[in-house]
Amino acid sequence: MEAALLLIGNELLSGKIQEANLAHLAHTLRKHGVALRRSVMVPDELPIIEAEVRGLSRSYTWLFTSGGVGPTHDDVTMVGVARAYGVDVILHPQLAAMIRARYGDRCSEGHLRMAMVPAGAALETSTGTVPPTTAGGAAEAPDEWPAVRIENTWILPGVPEAFRMKLEIVAATLRRSGGGPAFVSLAVYTQLDEAGLIPALEQVVAAHPQVEIGSYPKWFDPTYRTKLTFDGRDETVVRAARDAFVALLPPGEPQRIE
Amino acid sequence: MEAALLLIGNELLSGKIQEANLAHLAHTLRKHGVALRRSVMVPDELPIIEAEVRGLSRSYTWLFTSGGVGPTHDDVTMVGVARAYGVDVILHPQLAAMIRARYGDRCSEGHLRMAMVPAGAALETSTGTVPPTTAGGAAEAPDEWPAVRIENTWILPGVPEAFRMKLEIVAATLRRSGGGPAFVSLAVYTQLDEAGLIPALEQVVAAHPQVEIGSYPKWFDPTYRTKLTFDGRDETVVRAARDAFVALLPPGEPQRIE
Repeated sequence: MEAALLLIGNELLSGKIQEANLAHLAHTLRKHGVALRRSVMVPDELPIIEAEVRGLSRSYTWLFTSGGVGPTHDDVTMVGVARAYGVDVILHPQLAAMIRARYGDRCSEGHLRMAMVPAGAALETSTGTVPPTTAGGAAEAPDEWPAVRIENTWILPGVPEAFRMKLEIVAATLRRSGGGPAFVSLAVYTQLDEAGLIPALEQVVAAHPQVEIGSYPKWFDPTYRTKLTFDGRDETVVRAARDAFVALLPPGEPQRIE
Repeated sequence: MEAALLLIGNELLSGKIQEANLAHLAHTLRKHGVALRRSVMVPDELPIIEAEVRGLSRSYTWLFTSGGVGPTHDDVTMVGVARAYGVDVILHPQLAAMIRARYGDRCSEGHLRMAMVPAGAALETSTGTVPPTTAGGAAEAPDEWPAVRIENTWILPGVPEAFRMKLEIVAATLRRSGGGPAFVSLAVYTQLDEAGLIPALEQVVAAHPQVEIGSYPKWFDPTYRTKLTFDGRDETVVRAARDAFVALLPPGEPQRIE
């Protein structure tokens, strides 16, 4: 269960906006046993988005896109995803019904552009996939603003508040589909520097191949100089690696464990 | 003049650490006319780093890597870059001299690992490339901790404070090499929503093809609902696009221009 994230937006690549969605996605996924393995940030350009979606959706269990889903000229994600899947963008009847209900008489063609999705896309809510409108039946709007998914690709908004709301739908979907056990993450903080930790680290890394062990120097923090992290899917194994490392530290260390 | 950024680190992809270097790099580059066009975030895994460095260094004027340059088992960037260029990692005599001078009697094999760089790499400082040690001559250390560059690939540290220090060296190098004119970025803030702005936006986008125009909705800000950005290399052209857009807004708008 591995995932990729495609971050779309000139405002991110120019540094005008600090990217703020990746860490939230990673936390949500790890709670359900899914590892975020790759993230790519690209400009609002159709051929680039199309190529990335095609490649990433085939290489990972899940692909998430963030950004480029509004109604203006620079919002080209829906078309990019549609092209990657070889389909057209269509006005989704249930999304259109929701937008009409929200804007009433003010509803313009511009507002309805936000109901354009790749043909075949599903609307996901916290309680499940919205059933498609039956032929001839009226479009029935779900109670909640849904997330758009086509195959294994979730098309999420870039605005951080909106992205986080959709993550609740992603989490509910992963819970329903079973998912895996959550990743376990433990940590050790020490005043020793990285170079001095190498012998102990190498011993523990070699003896615990199932545990991902990281070493991170910290500048300008009086409470510790290096943070060691121990991650994996099996808590017993992760805990054993952390404890083996702690046992190799000199007296007075570590400063703190988590 | 286009650049790519390779962000390396499990701690970023797991969401433990918020990525904090991209925006600083983008600002530095844009001041010297270089656009950051792509960023890829990958785990601390040698084959992935090697493949990315090979691909990105060939496709862009400059490649910057961030992270994975310490002395521990999870620091594999130097080897990854070396493999991408088909060279070995070697102990750089001048870097080794600096590290020995800094750590004195405490200097261990672990500390010296931080002097391992791809063969052929140059050390860059604010005042220029450090001349290589002459055969038989003593290694002469520069006055300043240098940045490591091989061909068009800059190998920068992941710790944000260290990354920003190296950016000053990158900026000095771009200044010396002439670089291009800085990007100009202007903005307009309005209480109108994106859908209502579409006619004006489409007219200005069509009339000003040299200007990159972005539209960004803001949630929960009482002072504006949509921010429009106007970016390009030619200030006159960018200003004309912004002013043309402002002229199309209704009375009472915009709220603010920059």
